[in-house]
Amino acid sequence: MFKKILIANRGEIALRVIRTAREMGIKTVVVYSTADEKSLPVLLADESVCVGPPASNASYLNIPNILSAAMMTGAEGIHPGYGFMAENPDFAEMCRDHGIVFIGPTPESMRALGSKAGGREIAASSNVPVVPGTGVLEDVDAALLAAKQVGYPVLLKASAGGGGRGQKVVRTQEELKSAFNQAQEEARLYFGDPAIIMEKFLEEFRHVEVQVMGDGNGHVIHIGERDCSIQRRNQKLIEEAPSTLPATLRQEILDAAVRLAQHVNYAGAGTLEFIVDRDGNYYFMEMNTRIQVEHCVSEMISGLDFVKMQLQIAAGEGLPLKQEDVILHGHSIECRLNAEDPDKDFRPAAGKIDDVHFAGGPGVRVDSHVYTGYVIPPHYDSLIGKLIVHHDTREQAIARMKRALEETVIQGPKTTIPLYIKIMDNPFYKRGAVMTNFLKTRMEM
Amino acid sequence: MFKKILIANRGEIALRVIRTAREMGIKTVVVYSTADEKSLPVLLADESVCVGPPASNASYLNIPNILSAAMMTGAEGIHPGYGFMAENPDFAEMCRDHGIVFIGPTPESMRALGSKAGGREIAASSNVPVVPGTGVLEDVDAALLAAKQVGYPVLLKASAGGGGRGQKVVRTQEELKSAFNQAQEEARLYFGDPAIIMEKFLEEFRHVEVQVMGDGNGHVIHIGERDCSIQRRNQKLIEEAPSTLPATLRQEILDAAVRLAQHVNYAGAGTLEFIVDRDGNYYFMEMNTRIQVEHCVSEMISGLDFVKMQLQIAAGEGLPLKQEDVILHGHSIECRLNAEDPDKDFRPAAGKIDDVHFAGGPGVRVDSHVYTGYVIPPHYDSLIGKLIVHHDTREQAIARMKRALEETVIQGPKTTIPLYIKIMDNPFYKRGAVMTNFLKTRMEM
Repeated sequence: MFKKILIANRGEIALRVIRTAREMGIKTVVVYSTADEKSLPVLLADESVCVGPPASNASYLNIPNILSAAMMTGAEGIHPGYGFMAENPDFAEMCRDHGIVFIGPTPESMRALGSKAGGREIAASSNVPVVPGTGVLEDVDAALLAAKQVGYPVLLKASAGGGGRGQKVVRTQEELKSAFNQAQEEARLYFGDPAIIMEKFLEEFRHVEVQVMGDGNGHVIHIGERDCSIQRRNQKLIEEAPSTLPATLRQEILDAAVRLAQHVNYAGAGTLEFIVDRDGNYYFMEMNTRIQVEHCVSEMISGLDFVKMQLQIAAGEGLPLKQEDVILHGHSIECRLNAEDPDKDFRPAAGKIDDVHFAGGPGVRVDSHVYTGYVIPPHYDSLIGKLIVHHDTREQAIARMKRALEETVIQGPKTTIPLYIKIMDNPFYKRGAVMTNFLKTRMEM
Repeated sequence: MFKKILIANRGEIALRVIRTAREMGIKTVVVYSTADEKSLPVLLADESVCVGPPASNASYLNIPNILSAAMMTGAEGIHPGYGFMAENPDFAEMCRDHGIVFIGPTPESMRALGSKAGGREIAASSNVPVVPGTGVLEDVDAALLAAKQVGYPVLLKASAGGGGRGQKVVRTQEELKSAFNQAQEEARLYFGDPAIIMEKFLEEFRHVEVQVMGDGNGHVIHIGERDCSIQRRNQKLIEEAPSTLPATLRQEILDAAVRLAQHVNYAGAGTLEFIVDRDGNYYFMEMNTRIQVEHCVSEMISGLDFVKMQLQIAAGEGLPLKQEDVILHGHSIECRLNAEDPDKDFRPAAGKIDDVHFAGGPGVRVDSHVYTGYVIPPHYDSLIGKLIVHHDTREQAIARMKRALEETVIQGPKTTIPLYIKIMDNPFYKRGAVMTNFLKTRMEM
């Protein structure tokens, strides 16, 4: 096992990795930007190295500085968290070239799965359904032809994109003509790659994803699925495990996920995202080759520590358990506590947290890097913590979440807590009738 | 099920009851003294009623005011928590007389088990071993005669006492002559009853206790045992579940506990306390007819909610599960966060909490009624919270507890946290070699 690792991230996920590392007796080095000097991960890590000014490009994405920090401190591995460098195969390769273990999959499987076009190909050859659509489209004529076959409305996606960014819904031939070049331009701008794919646009669906762990030697297990349908602008807000899908459909999706991950001989923690339509058809969307924000709900129902498993796999110890040893119990829900104003289109609210008091008691878990007096830097995302609950049934978990949300006090910035309390009372949410357009159709937002 | 209950307690246990009640959709009324006006339970309960000035006798022990508060607010049941009225059979009887459900056992079984002499008798008739000793001793001559049979050193205990208070170790005949009358006087003073019993004094033992739940119709289940050997002045500091006892001995104690509780047709949550000597002999000490501070460790390994079970039983719904449905998993440890100075003989430290930040992350539970700016009133006990962890094994739970203690920040009063961090590193503690004299023999305190 590692003696020392470097964490190339910030906020709650940096703290999450520190927690498990400490429990395993592994020393931690955290890198930070000058904006995060007083952050909890910096205070709690064994060592910390400043890698640049606030702008992510100059700090958390600054490969030379991060690699130098690892070598200088003698870190044997780098945990990338999520975002930033987590899905950058070049970084993973540079780690390998410098004799540092990248705690994640190989650069090869990251590359294969990293583009949406590549993901669709792999799914097809693993016999996993994908949304009707195309590979990379050469030009607007190819797009027009493809749209005829796929049928309007269609979705244009940056092949190199992720997290819902850079997607365009197109409903007519006329729209497509003007949208295609613009989509290419934006893809080039945001992701450094103009490649665009097209998919059939589904108006209403559930977002269901499967957590897998692979050892890189052909063994892949799943640790159940999560429903992450409550989203705003394609960004998840509330996640839960398990989903409310019928048992047969659920098992089909779990099997499909394992089949696909096995096909690429996946190593480490990964998530396969699916969409499920009203009729119970499911389609693979993409694989996230990293730990996810919402991993905690799956930890709660399995009793497993996914960061520990990542470290065990990366250290060459293989998978610590077999599929039949994964026992899921009860129901878990996570609310992402965002410093945002839900009444003003989720506008980010930076600034000082005057007072924070988190919920406690049975079945409540809090993962947060903020504290009373903490100043939220405006440079990064608005996630200030995650409130996670566990109970025997979905109904009880909802009651527990509502109770925990009502106990939570965050004074200073606006947060998404009042919205979540309303959602816990929403009859559609309560009976699990949730599609990704929930906020619009059920909450009139 | 109840629509509304009154909570006749304060601090973390009042909050604990509120949490479960809210999740069950039961309205809560909390009573409070003027010293607790700004306490979290008062802020979070649906209703609150001031029942008197700070002194417990005038508020939390003020039966007329508490019963009036219940009737005035239409509460159908009273949850007494622990301490205060929790083991007062007269109060339980008055509740019954007023048509209010006392959420606990019947006054009859509280009376039968309430005295140490009575407990010893019931144990004997349930074929459960007790420490060699006596019933109530008439006078000093009876005591001298008994001590000859029991063998020095002996322990004098107030029959009506509890929680380790009013106990005297006597090592010689001379000592006994002077100590006996003094013990009677103190018992009269503290507990309103001069009755004294004698037990063989064991120099070194483990404190092991069994959590039971009974339906009052002859069905009793256990929810495992706890080891609470780390104590100061007979007050528990750290508890864990399960114990590290050998499997056969453990099962014998569990069986004995259920047998005894069944013998009195016990209703509700209760704890049977045993001592276990170096040679693996075990003796029943007493039964606590209420929920205990340390119930959380058993909740963590069973996944059950004991307050919910108390409410279900009191509402006449019976036991929600059978013995074979109780599945224990992993290991849990609780540290009582006391506002005390361990370096100054655990002197209580009242005053303002300038800053509090509790641990979070996987497997961590915090039960606490304090917040930043909260002023600890000097009138009550020094418990300001409980830090509870759960993990797969004892070794991992210890590592998690250490990590969680190191994350916890309480600024203002001195606390027991630094002591607990040292204990988590102690080699005797780590290998589970812990007797009730641990602090003295292993920590030189």
